[in-house]
Amino acid sequence: MTATHFLVEDIVKRALLEDIGLFDATTTLTVPPSKLGRALVKARSPMVLSGTEPFLAVFGLVDKAVVCRLAATDGEELSANDTIFELSGPAASILTSERVALNFLGHLSGVATLTKRFVNALSQFKTKILDTRKTLPGLRLLEKKAVRHGGGFNHRFSLHDGILIKDNHIQAAGSITEAVSRVRANGSNYRKIEVEVDDMAQLTEALEVEADMILLDNMTINELKTAVNMVKKHFEPGPVKTLLEASGGINLNNVAQVAETGVDYISVGALTHSAPWADVGLDWI
Amino acid sequence: MTATHFLVEDIVKRALLEDIGLFDATTTLTVPPSKLGRALVKARSPMVLSGTEPFLAVFGLVDKAVVCRLAATDGEELSANDTIFELSGPAASILTSERVALNFLGHLSGVATLTKRFVNALSQFKTKILDTRKTLPGLRLLEKKAVRHGGGFNHRFSLHDGILIKDNHIQAAGSITEAVSRVRANGSNYRKIEVEVDDMAQLTEALEVEADMILLDNMTINELKTAVNMVKKHFEPGPVKTLLEASGGINLNNVAQVAETGVDYISVGALTHSAPWADVGLDWI
Amino acid sequence: MTATHFLVEDIVKRALLEDIGLFDATTTLTVPPSKLGRALVKARSPMVLSGTEPFLAVFGLVDKAVVCRLAATDGEELSANDTIFELSGPAASILTSERVALNFLGHLSGVATLTKRFVNALSQFKTKILDTRKTLPGLRLLEKKAVRHGGGFNHRFSLHDGILIKDNHIQAAGSITEAVSRVRANGSNYRKIEVEVDDMAQLTEALEVEADMILLDNMTINELKTAVNMVKKHFEPGPVKTLLEASGGINLNNVAQVAETGVDYISVGALTHSAPWADVGLDWI
Amino acid sequence: MTATHFLVEDIVKRALLEDIGLFDATTTLTVPPSKLGRALVKARSPMVLSGTEPFLAVFGLVDKAVVCRLAATDGEELSANDTIFELSGPAASILTSERVALNFLGHLSGVATLTKRFVNALSQFKTKILDTRKTLPGLRLLEKKAVRHGGGFNHRFSLHDGILIKDNHIQAAGSITEAVSRVRANGSNYRKIEVEVDDMAQLTEALEVEADMILLDNMTINELKTAVNMVKKHFEPGPVKTLLEASGGINLNNVAQVAETGVDYISVGALTHSAPWADVGLDWI
Amino acid sequence: MTATHFLVEDIVKRALLEDIGLFDATTTLTVPPSKLGRALVKARSPMVLSGTEPFLAVFGLVDKAVVCRLAATDGEELSANDTIFELSGPAASILTSERVALNFLGHLSGVATLTKRFVNALSQFKTKILDTRKTLPGLRLLEKKAVRHGGGFNHRFSLHDGILIKDNHIQAAGSITEAVSRVRANGSNYRKIEVEVDDMAQLTEALEVEADMILLDNMTINELKTAVNMVKKHFEPGPVKTLLEASGGINLNNVAQVAETGVDYISVGALTHSAPWADVGLDWI
Amino acid sequence: MTATHFLVEDIVKRALLEDIGLFDATTTLTVPPSKLGRALVKARSPMVLSGTEPFLAVFGLVDKAVVCRLAATDGEELSANDTIFELSGPAASILTSERVALNFLGHLSGVATLTKRFVNALSQFKTKILDTRKTLPGLRLLEKKAVRHGGGFNHRFSLHDGILIKDNHIQAAGSITEAVSRVRANGSNYRKIEVEVDDMAQLTEALEVEADMILLDNMTINELKTAVNMVKKHFEPGPVKTLLEASGGINLNNVAQVAETGVDYISVGALTHSAPWADVGLDWI
Repeated sequence: MTATHFLVEDIVKRALLEDIGLFDATTTLTVPPSKLGRALVKARSPMVLSGTEPFLAVFGLVDKAVVCRLAATDGEELSANDTIFELSGPAASILTSERVALNFLGHLSGVATLTKRFVNALSQFKTKILDTRKTLPGLRLLEKKAVRHGGGFNHRFSLHDGILIKDNHIQAAGSITEAVSRVRANGSNYRKIEVEVDDMAQLTEALEVEADMILLDNMTINELKTAVNMVKKHFEPGPVKTLLEASGGINLNNVAQVAETGVDYISVGALTHSAPWADVGLDWI
Repeated sequence: MTATHFLVEDIVKRALLEDIGLFDATTTLTVPPSKLGRALVKARSPMVLSGTEPFLAVFGLVDKAVVCRLAATDGEELSANDTIFELSGPAASILTSERVALNFLGHLSGVATLTKRFVNALSQFKTKILDTRKTLPGLRLLEKKAVRHGGGFNHRFSLHDGILIKDNHIQAAGSITEAVSRVRANGSNYRKIEVEVDDMAQLTEALEVEADMILLDNMTINELKTAVNMVKKHFEPGPVKTLLEASGGINLNNVAQVAETGVDYISVGALTHSAPWADVGLDWI
Repeated sequence: MTATHFLVEDIVKRALLEDIGLFDATTTLTVPPSKLGRALVKARSPMVLSGTEPFLAVFGLVDKAVVCRLAATDGEELSANDTIFELSGPAASILTSERVALNFLGHLSGVATLTKRFVNALSQFKTKILDTRKTLPGLRLLEKKAVRHGGGFNHRFSLHDGILIKDNHIQAAGSITEAVSRVRANGSNYRKIEVEVDDMAQLTEALEVEADMILLDNMTINELKTAVNMVKKHFEPGPVKTLLEASGGINLNNVAQVAETGVDYISVGALTHSAPWADVGLDWI
Repeated sequence: MTATHFLVEDIVKRALLEDIGLFDATTTLTVPPSKLGRALVKARSPMVLSGTEPFLAVFGLVDKAVVCRLAATDGEELSANDTIFELSGPAASILTSERVALNFLGHLSGVATLTKRFVNALSQFKTKILDTRKTLPGLRLLEKKAVRHGGGFNHRFSLHDGILIKDNHIQAAGSITEAVSRVRANGSNYRKIEVEVDDMAQLTEALEVEADMILLDNMTINELKTAVNMVKKHFEPGPVKTLLEASGGINLNNVAQVAETGVDYISVGALTHSAPWADVGLDWI
Repeated sequence: MTATHFLVEDIVKRALLEDIGLFDATTTLTVPPSKLGRALVKARSPMVLSGTEPFLAVFGLVDKAVVCRLAATDGEELSANDTIFELSGPAASILTSERVALNFLGHLSGVATLTKRFVNALSQFKTKILDTRKTLPGLRLLEKKAVRHGGGFNHRFSLHDGILIKDNHIQAAGSITEAVSRVRANGSNYRKIEVEVDDMAQLTEALEVEADMILLDNMTINELKTAVNMVKKHFEPGPVKTLLEASGGINLNNVAQVAETGVDYISVGALTHSAPWADVGLDWI
Repeated sequence: MTATHFLVEDIVKRALLEDIGLFDATTTLTVPPSKLGRALVKARSPMVLSGTEPFLAVFGLVDKAVVCRLAATDGEELSANDTIFELSGPAASILTSERVALNFLGHLSGVATLTKRFVNALSQFKTKILDTRKTLPGLRLLEKKAVRHGGGFNHRFSLHDGILIKDNHIQAAGSITEAVSRVRANGSNYRKIEVEVDDMAQLTEALEVEADMILLDNMTINELKTAVNMVKKHFEPGPVKTLLEASGGINLNNVAQVAETGVDYISVGALTHSAPWADVGLDWI
C-alpha cells in the first residue's frame, strides 16, 4: 500500500460508480450472495504487468471478503497464460468487480508493455525513455507509474512541478534569455529550467543562459547530431552540464537512430496516449 | 450544451487538477496576464472529430474570457490541417489549458476515428458496430459518445442498465433456463435479456427461453454461420425475433467476414481500449 | 453487505452531517464517553421491515464499537413490539446516531409497508405492483429496494436505463411510429420500448409498431378493459407479446378493480412519494 | 436567491444524477435539441406551495436557456389548477428536468400543506406548531423551510444547535439537576436548555433547575393540564419564564385539545415524515 | 474517537492532498518500503496539548501500519521535551506523514496554549474566556476544540446556531426592540438572544427587551463598570438574569482589568486568529 | 481571475459551509432581503495586503448581486484606515458573508505583513526569504501567495514537487552520496536536489555529489560563515554553483546576522505558522 493509496481509491471509486451504476442487475438477479467462487486472472499475451494497485482497490471497495492472492508484481514480464491474481470469495462480488478491475489492469499493462518495447529498442544506448503530459484524463498518476513499471522515466507530472519554457512562453517573454531570467528572478529555486528549442540559434541562446535541460523539438536526425555536438563544444573541455531531450515524431522504427545521436532523453507521447491494451482475462476454476 | 454537461464538467475539473496542480509555474512566471493571443486547433491527420464538449468545458472552467469558435462538429470527418477551433483571449489561460483540452480531443477523436474504420468496413452489410464496457476508467460516458460520433452504436453503459447473462451467471444459476427465469420472475420488465452462448446447445436453450438478444462469444466464422441459420429456422416461417451479437477476436481484417454471416451486431472492445490517439495540435496565429 | 454499499454510505454520511452538524451538544456535555449501554430497536406497529442496510451504515460511520445484532430481515412482516436490532456499546454513540438511523428505518419500512398493502390487495390477480420515478430526492435507490421488500417490482431507475415514450416525446417526434422508429434507428438494442397511450387510437399505433410495453395512462376501468381486449385480439391466436401497465389515480380502494381488467402491471407513485412512516423506536435496556 | 443556495444546489445536483443517470435515453433519441416548448406547472389540488427554490435550481443546473416565470410564491395557498410556473425553452431540457423538479415541489408542498392543516386547527389558540428532527434523510433544510411556509415553526435543526436533555441523558448524568448543571458548567452560553420530562416529579425538578423550555412527552390531556398549572404556580405571581412543548401521538384529531391545555408549542413528527405529496403536474401549451 | 471523526478525516485528507501532491518524491526515491523506524513526537517548549485527533487521523489515512502510542492527552500542560506520541512502523510512511501531522499539532496546541494564558490571567475572577468566529478558514471545529483544551469556552460555532444581533441588524430592523421582536415572532425558541450594544442607551433598551446576553463592544474599563452596575440595578433586588460579554481590544495586558469589572465573559479573537504555533518536533530513536 | 480560481472557490466554499451552517439565523430574522447597503472594508493598522482573491470568491458564491470594487491590490502596503474594498448590494448578503471574507483577508494579510518585515530586515543583503511547508492545513496555496505578496519567495509546495533529502532519508539510504545517487538513478530529471546538512562533514559530502542546493540546518552564525567559505573554496576559481539555504531558529532579531553570512536563502516557518492577523474591518456607509 503506497502513501497515496487514497488517491488511487478515489479513481477506482469513480470507475466503479461508472460501471455499476446503482447495482449489477444481472448478477443480483441470478447469483445468490452465498455462492462462493475461485478465479484466476491471467495474461493472455506477453506483457509487462502494471495496475495491481487499482485492481486490489476495486475489491477493497466492493467486498473485502474477496481474497486476492497476488502471483506477480508490477514491472514483471509475463508470458501468455501466466497467472496474475488468484481470487476467492463471494462469486457475485467477483462478477460485479471483474470488468473494472480488468480495465485498469489491461490499460496500465498496455502502457508498461509499450514502454518496455521502447526501452528494449535502446538497450545499447544510455538514452532514457520519458513520458509526457499526453496522458488520458484522470489516469495520469497510474499511467506514469505504468511507464516506470515498463522501464521508462517520468517527465514532469503537472504544470506545477516543472518548468518547461516552450515557444509560446518565449514569444510572450520576448526571448529565451528574458523568459529564463523572469523565472530565475522569481526565485523558483527548487525547479530546474528546461527550454524547448526549434533550431540552432535558439539552442545557442539556451546554452548561454545555462538552461538545465533543453528540449530539441521535432528535429531531424542530422539536426539532432548537430545539436549534440554544439552542446559538447559549448562545455569543452569540461563535462556537459545540460541534459538534452529529443521529442516529436519518434516511434519504434526510428527511436534507436534518435538515441544514437547522443541525446540523454527521448520523450514519447504514445506511451500513454496510444498504448494498445494488454489482453488480460478472468477464468473461474 | 447537453443536459448532463455537469457530469462532463466534473470529469474535466479532475483532469485540470491533475494537470495544473497548484498553478502553471512556467506560464505564471513568463506570460503577463494582460497578454492576449489567438490560436487555431487543427487536425494534423485525417480523423473523425469527437470531444468538443469537454474541450469547451476546459476553457469554461479555466477562463471564460477565452472565446472558442467551433469550426467543425462532432462526428465530422476532417482532413489533415482542417481547423477545429479558433481560440482568442488571454494567452496565459490558453497556454495553461492547452494540454488537457487537447488530451480530450485527441483521445476521443481517436475512438471516433477507429470506430469509423470498422463502420466503413461494413458498408455493404446491415450489421452494426457496438462498443463494450472495456472502456478506460473514468471516461466511459465520453468514449461512448465518441463511438456514436464514429457511426457505431452503444451497448449497455453499466451493469445496471442492461441484462447480459454470461457463463458465470449461467453456472451460478444452474442453466440458461433457470437464469432467465430468475430474471423474469423478479420482474425486470423494462430491460431486454441478452444471453451469452458458447455453443449450439446453449444457443438452442437461449432460443427456447426467448432471449431478446444472444451474444455469440468467440465463435469461428463457420460456427457463426451455423448459429445464424439455426436462429432463422427456429423462427420460420415468421420473422426472426432475436438479435444476434458476435464478439471476441474481431478486428479490421476479419470484421467483414463476420458481418457476412448475418449477425446483427459486432461488438469490439478495441474501439475504446486500444484506439490510438488522433493527432491534434494548437498553433498560435 | 451489497456491492454498492459505498453508495449507501454516501447517503448516510450526508444524513449524519445534516443531523449532527459539528457535534451532538447535549450528549457531549452530559454523557461520559466511557458509559456503555444496551438498547432495543423495535417496531411500534405492524410493518414490513426495510432499511437495515443504511441503519447499519450509520453505526459503521459513527462508531464501530457499537455492536448491532440484527433480529429481523428486510422484507419481514413484523408485529408491534417485535425487535429489529439489539444494540450495545458506548451510550453516547448510540444517542448521537439514534435519530438518523431511525429516520431511515421508519421511512423505508413505511414504503415497504404501503407496498405490501397494495400487493395484498392483488393477491387474487397475476397483476404486479410497480413503483415510479416519483421518489423523494436523494433516496431513490433505498426506496426502490423498499418497494421490493414490500413485494412490489421496480420500474426503471432513471431516465437512462429505460425507454418510456410519453405524450411529449410523441408530439416532438410527430407520431408514436416516428418516435419508436427513431429509438430503433439509434440502436438502443438493449432496452425495451414502452409507449404511453391515452386512447385506443394511440394503443392501436403502439401495437402496430410492436412496442414491448404499453402504459395505459389515466384510463377508466372500462377503457382499461377495452384496451386489454384490443391487445388480446391483436395477437390472436398467438400469445400476447406486449406488457400492459396501468397508471394514474390508482389507490387501495380501486386497485383490485384495475387488476381485474387484466393488465400486467399497475404503477403507483404513492408507494414512494406518500408513504406514511412506520413507527419504530429505540428503548434502553 | 438565498445565501445558502449552494447548499440547495448540492441537493439538487445529487437528485439529478440519481434521476438522469448518464443521459435521458428517450428524450435524446426522440426530441431534437432545437425544438422549443412552453409548459405550465400547476397545482392539481388545493395546497400550500413550497419548493420553488430547488425547482429553479434544477433548471439552473440542466439548462439556463429554460426560462422559469414564477407565478406564485412559497407559502401561498393555491387552488387546484392554479399556475405555479410558466416554463419556456428547449423542450428536451424541460422533459429531462420535469420529474426531479416536480418531485421537489410535490414533496415540499405536501409538507407545507400538512403543516397548514395543523396550524389552522389551532387558529383559536396561541399554541404554535413545531417540527422535529424526524425528517427524511438529506432533505432536512428544505423540509424545515416547507414547515415555515405552512405557518409552522422550526425546532432545532441538528444535534449541534440545540440542547435537548432526554431521558437517556438524564439517566447517564444521574438526574435532571446533574445533567443541566453539566451543560451549564461547560458554558454552552448561547443555547437555551430544554428538558424532556415524563411525569410531574421530573417536571418539578426541571422547574427548579430553571430549564428554559420543557418537553412534556407523551402525556394525556389531563396530565398536560396538570403540568401547565404546576408551571403557572411555580412562577406566581410573576410571569411564566419557561416554555412548554407537548409531543407524542398528536394528530389532527386531538391537536386542538392539546393546545387548549395551554402549552406553548406542539411538535409533530408527521409534518415531515408522513406528509402525503401535493399533486403538481406539468402541461405543455 | 469522537462521533464526528469523519468530519476530522475530511479536513485531514485535504491537508494530505495539499502536502503530498501525487507522491513524496524524496522518500519514494530514497527509503525502501520495508525499512521500519521508531520516532518520538515531543514538545519543544512548554505548551497545552491539542490536536491529537487529527494527528492520529493522518496516520490512519496514510498507513494503518504505523502504530501511534499516545503519551499525553489533549488539554494536558506539557514541559519542553515531554513526549506526546511514540510512533513505530514503516519509516517511509512516517516521513511522508510527519509534516502534516505536526502542522495540526503545532497550530492547535498553539491555540490551546494561548487560551490557557488568558485563562490563567483570570484565575481570581469568575469571568470566562470565550472564542469568536475569527477562526482560520477550514479549521474552526478543531480550533474551537483547542480553545476548550486550553480552558476557554466556545461562543457560537456558526451563524446558524446562535442569535447575535449586531449594530447592522439593529439598523436594518430600526431598533433593538424591533430586531428582538422579529426574532421572537419567528419563534427561534431554542436559541438565546444576544444583543451587541455600543453605549448605555442601547444597553438600557437591550435590558428592557430582556435579551438573554449582551455584548459590550469596545468599551473602556469605566464604561464596562457603568454597564455592569446598570445591569445589576435593573434586576435588583432579584438576581441578574442577563449575561454580559466584553469584547474588543482585549489582550493579556488588560484582560484582568476587564474581568474585574464583573462581566461574565470576555471574548478574544486572537485565541484563534493570532496564536503563535507551539513548537513540536519528531525525532527518530 | 487566476487559472486555478476553482481551487480557491473550493476552499472558500468549505469556509462558508463552516461559518453559515444551514443559514444565518440572525440576519434571516432581522434584515429584509430587499434592503440594500454600502460598506467599506478598511485596514485598521498598517499592513501588506493579501487575500483579495478569496474575498471576492466569498461574494461570488453567496450573492453575485453584491458589487465589490477593489481599491487596493495584493502586495500593496496600506496605512491604517486605507480602503481595500467598497461593497454595495443586498445588506443581508453582505452581513452573512462578512466574517468569512474578513477571516481570509486578515490572516493572509497577516502572513504578507510578517513576510515584509523579514524582507525589509534584509534590504541590504542579496539573501532572499523563503517560506516552508509549516503552513496551516488547508490554506497552503493561499499562504504561499501571501508570502509572495510580502516580497518573499516560495520553497517547494509539496513533497511531490521538490527533492529535499533530510537526515532521515540520508540515514535510510546510508549516506548522502547513496541517497543522491538513488534519486539520480531514478531519473527525477526535472527536479533539483537539495540536501539538508547538519555539519561540515555532511556539507563536504553534499558538495562532492554536486547537490543543487544545500540546507544548513540549525547552524550558529559562525558555522554558517564557515559553511559559506567552504562552499566558495569548493568552486574556486569558478562561480559557486550551489545555492545555500539557512534554516532553524531564525527570527526578526537575528535574520540580518544570518544574511550577512552570505547564504542565498533563509527559510522561516513562522511566516505561515505564526503570523498574527492583520486587523481589517467592515464599516457601513
